[in-house]
Amino acid sequence: MLTLWHCADARSFRALWALEELGLPYELKLLPFPPRVRQPEYLAENPLGTIPLLVDGTTRMTESAAIVQYLATREGPSVLSVEPGDPAYGAWLNGLHFGEATLTFPQTLVLRYTRLEPKERRNPQVAEDYGRWFASRLKILNEIVPEGGWYCAGRFTGADISVGYALLLAETLGLSERFGPHIAAYWDRLQARAGFQAAKRAQASEGTPGWQSA
Amino acid sequence: MLTLWHCADARSFRALWALEELGLPYELKLLPFPPRVRQPEYLAENPLGTIPLLVDGTTRMTESAAIVQYLATREGPSVLSVEPGDPAYGAWLNGLHFGEATLTFPQTLVLRYTRLEPKERRNPQVAEDYGRWFASRLKILNEIVPEGGWYCAGRFTGADISVGYALLLAETLGLSERFGPHIAAYWDRLQARAGFQAAKRAQASEGTPGWQSA
Repeated sequence: MLTLWHCADARSFRALWALEELGLPYELKLLPFPPRVRQPEYLAENPLGTIPLLVDGTTRMTESAAIVQYLATREGPSVLSVEPGDPAYGAWLNGLHFGEATLTFPQTLVLRYTRLEPKERRNPQVAEDYGRWFASRLKILNEIVPEGGWYCAGRFTGADISVGYALLLAETLGLSERFGPHIAAYWDRLQARAGFQAAKRAQASEGTPGWQSA
Repeated sequence: MLTLWHCADARSFRALWALEELGLPYELKLLPFPPRVRQPEYLAENPLGTIPLLVDGTTRMTESAAIVQYLATREGPSVLSVEPGDPAYGAWLNGLHFGEATLTFPQTLVLRYTRLEPKERRNPQVAEDYGRWFASRLKILNEIVPEGGWYCAGRFTGADISVGYALLLAETLGLSERFGPHIAAYWDRLQARAGFQAAKRAQASEGTPGWQSA
């Protein structure tokens, strides 16, 4: 049985979305944000208190984009995977990393220094530096995604989940005004996925507040 | 033919190290740092001016940890890969991402706000926040790497390259004093690899200054 520790709309949403797209059975452990403060017993599972944590037998994973790839490939090819030998294999791997390291991490600086830190430690300069960084990386995404299409391989894959979470975070942080019409339409297509909507329902059903309310 | 655009000791070192470990033929395009300022014609290849850029036929990749995985798997299993079905598969994928998203990105904040920004924009608070973050993530690495061993699978893999680059960057930034003896010994093992040393020689032979001198 797969077990996922998750906070609503946090990075672990990638894993939840992948589980739903793949139709895999799982147990969801929904935590309040930030868990290290509001659910300290979680530290016994993950000493850093970060989410996600995915447990699959003896496998324990903490990196959300890696979990998407793991779920997509652990039992062979799936609808979310692109395999070696496919011309889109490199683009797929790049997209899995690009969604997190390039599109999500800069936004966490905006989040931290405009919302999570106490007022005297907030820092508009850093938030602006990384808001601008995010906007410049969106231009690259704008070139990659074809009109009406997906990140790579001519179909929806795990790379769209990795990148899609960055767009979800951007919307929460008020950065979605930087999308432009092409990325906004891509974001609409992502939200229209049955798997996206099932993941939203799964996290809502428990009624635990997500990080926005922290 | 594989072509790698690289700045000495920048993230693209991961790709160079993987090429050397795998014994693959490649063409190295060594750029001064930062290329967008000091070699603007590179923007025709990569509009953001970031490195790495790996080109393999029609495949173009920009995420260093994704490139390690690509090189390790594009022609089937290799000495750097761990395959689905192996009990270490999840740990391997996690390590590829952990090395960049969790161990490297926080250090880029330290780099930016202590060295790269003009004096009036430097920010000791942010550098301290992310130096501390890096140190707390090192504790996790300390638990993962066994005495005398490697990140996962009981052997050297691409996950060690991803994590190893974070330790190289830490040494350059003066953060290696936070390693502790166990991580320091792991860092020594990494530097002793023939592939690591060959990558160091390859970037030195061209005589182009790396980002430390920028």
